Amino acid sequence: MVSEAGNHEALIAGVLNGEWRATARAISIIENSEAGRVEILSRLYPSGRSGRVCGITGPSGAGKSTLVDRLASHYRGADERVGILCVDPTSPFSGGALLGDRIRMNEIVLDPGVFIRSMATRGSRGGLGKAAREVISVLEATGTEQVLVETVGVGQVELDIAEAADTVVVVLVPESGDGIQAMKAGLMEIGDVFVVNKADRDGAEGLRIEIESVLGLRTGREWRPPVLTTIASEGRGITELADAILSHREWLEVSGEGERRRRSRIMSYVKEIVQDALAASLWEEGGYRRQLEEYLPEILEGRRDPFSVAEDILAASGMLESLNRDSD
Amino acid sequence: MVSEAGNHEALIAGVLNGEWRATARAISIIENSEAGRVEILSRLYPSGRSGRVCGITGPSGAGKSTLVDRLASHYRGADERVGILCVDPTSPFSGGALLGDRIRMNEIVLDPGVFIRSMATRGSRGGLGKAAREVISVLEATGTEQVLVETVGVGQVELDIAEAADTVVVVLVPESGDGIQAMKAGLMEIGDVFVVNKADRDGAEGLRIEIESVLGLRTGREWRPPVLTTIASEGRGITELADAILSHREWLEVSGEGERRRRSRIMSYVKEIVQDALAASLWEEGGYRRQLEEYLPEILEGRRDPFSVAEDILAASGMLESLNRDSD
Repeated sequence: MVSEAGNHEALIAGVLNGEWRATARAISIIENSEAGRVEILSRLYPSGRSGRVCGITGPSGAGKSTLVDRLASHYRGADERVGILCVDPTSPFSGGALLGDRIRMNEIVLDPGVFIRSMATRGSRGGLGKAAREVISVLEATGTEQVLVETVGVGQVELDIAEAADTVVVVLVPESGDGIQAMKAGLMEIGDVFVVNKADRDGAEGLRIEIESVLGLRTGREWRPPVLTTIASEGRGITELADAILSHREWLEVSGEGERRRRSRIMSYVKEIVQDALAASLWEEGGYRRQLEEYLPEILEGRRDPFSVAEDILAASGMLESLNRDSD
Repeated sequence: MVSEAGNHEALIAGVLNGEWRATARAISIIENSEAGRVEILSRLYPSGRSGRVCGITGPSGAGKSTLVDRLASHYRGADERVGILCVDPTSPFSGGALLGDRIRMNEIVLDPGVFIRSMATRGSRGGLGKAAREVISVLEATGTEQVLVETVGVGQVELDIAEAADTVVVVLVPESGDGIQAMKAGLMEIGDVFVVNKADRDGAEGLRIEIESVLGLRTGREWRPPVLTTIASEGRGITELADAILSHREWLEVSGEGERRRRSRIMSYVKEIVQDALAASLWEEGGYRRQLEEYLPEILEGRRDPFSVAEDILAASGMLESLNRDSD
């Protein structure tokens, strides 16, 4: 532990000092699960939890990238530093990110006050959401005034990442079916601020009204999400959006909701660490993987069932005496 | 345990005998995590794993419901019994299923040879995929010749459920952007059979060619997914689809791929049961939830980090001495 701590001391100091090079290296270590990952995450964690994380999500084609770029420029205009994480879908055959390596054709890429990082969707269940949450905590640790997390798509991963954000902006465009799609995907539930982008299109006002009316069904909540209109490509509505994000951030602190969310996030994080460690130790080499493989034929042939095998493994591990067969 | 076994003996026998009433009751017990869930699942498991599960997935509006209905009618024409599970998205505000209770306006609803069940998306992470896989194993246990699983949407839950299916049919329609959307969502990766539905629309042939060309990039696989065209609303192409599903099923058995998938599924299932049991015992009343709550303020104030708290809990539990800080 002592030697390890020494290894990454400079890196951790660099991140805390807001150096992009160190930040990029720390993120790579985390993404690739290299040695030092736990040290880096645990050392950077306490300086995180800043309330400065804004997630931008919505269906593809809604103009999220443009909106994020404009928002970043807006913050830069106020001399704030911005960390941007783009979580992009994978092209399943190439193994690379379909949009992950796109070049953003504007000034923010070259701005030394902006750090941009892309992540691609991984195959493994739950893997991306976890990795993205870890990367977000590193971005928070850099001390940038603004952290923007852009997610493409409307699946479970996006919902996971939204949970890691303090403020969630849901971006929709006037297009048939978008409203109902968003509702299906649970976006209406997670949005703190709604944006009708490409508001010069036909149907923009209709969509705005549709969102308002659906939001009207949300009861028992103190925060009533504003529904804004933007034309991101022309930079219209960006100041209002930044104001709305700030208002929500202030509300989080005043209402105590921010504190509540932080507590809930920490609880989930600790549980995840504990459970992942147990799972890793169970199925690693020398764990119970071989025992499980030996039982496989019996299950395949119908002589044993998965629950009784699980019970045997639990008993052998000494971690738990038996399954609680009366509950989930 | 003895008394419990007695409680559900008749129910289990009913499911194995293909009685819909018992099947519906067993599914409800599983969905609601009522007492008897584990007993029912473990008793029904060995009779499952039939190779008869066909998942139908794709973006909403692709006509999946119509396709499933037509396919079911086709199987009924051959006097085969059909179990159908529809996994539908939730309306987040009502808490109920948006489409879950829709009435299918055709003959299969009234057909005693068809069992239909809907499930709504749950809020909890990973919850729906797990519950759906359990329901699928009950449907398999009923001995119906065909099990059809319809999922709406293209998120992680759908990918999870697809993993539980022996054959996955991906349904797309000629509409701008659908092809690229499917690729993003990982659908191209999981499809065993592709269907261009509403094939009388403009662009159908273009979409078919697009899918073929993307599939051409899949290398190192023995099964080359056919790309079919259907007009489900008119019943056109259904026989060919049923034939393609059957061909894939036969290939699974001949190639050994079916066996490989079954082994992998059983491994995952046992691991999940073990890990869920450990997680439940850790955080239940009397477990380490209180300890975690007591540590919360220290983490919030930056005096402790989540990893060191996780380590304390692991040490206290006796399950694991410490985190492996060198790996994921």
